[in-house]
Amino acid sequence: MQIIEFQELMKKLYFKRDLERGVIGTFNWLVDEVGELGDEIKRSPLDKEATEKEFADVIVWLASLANIMGIDLEKAALHKYNYKCPKYLQAPCQCTF
Amino acid sequence: MQIIEFQELMKKLYFKRDLERGVIGTFNWLVDEVGELGDEIKRSPLDKEATEKEFADVIVWLASLANIMGIDLEKAALHKYNYKCPKYLQAPCQCTF
Repeated sequence: MQIIEFQELMKKLYFKRDLERGVIGTFNWLVDEVGELGDEIKRSPLDKEATEKEFADVIVWLASLANIMGIDLEKAALHKYNYKCPKYLQAPCQCTF
Repeated sequence: MQIIEFQELMKKLYFKRDLERGVIGTFNWLVDEVGELGDEIKRSPLDKEATEKEFADVIVWLASLANIMGIDLEKAALHKYNYKCPKYLQAPCQCTF
């Protein structure tokens, strides 16, 4: 799934609630989820399924925050790499993702 | 770009360094980046470019952590939604992303 499509899915599911909660409230949820991820990765033995769930929660809340701030996560991520081809790190990208 | 492709790009770029830093060290970087994102979103007026950069940094470090833990971020995210179609929330997904 494309990053932008995942973000759009989160918008479809949660945008109204995210907007009501607001930027700071949503950021605080993101921080809580990162904390929960931290708890899971320190567990021994590792519970892989629980860890995957926490990774998912972090990316979900990051997408929620991006949605209410009008940020395109995929564009932001690509911009960091100067829009070079994500596969070969050359510009311009000729891939058809 | 697909989530898995972005994660693979991060692997190509940073895996060796991420592995040397280790799980806890990489998680701590993620926490720092979330903190920097928090600083940016509270700025008034908002610096959109700087905010986008911080969003990018968070997803980059999340992908780095996932890489060294053998977690597939895209699979984890989809699993949260029971592999339903990300566009229509129906299973099975018939889309060709």
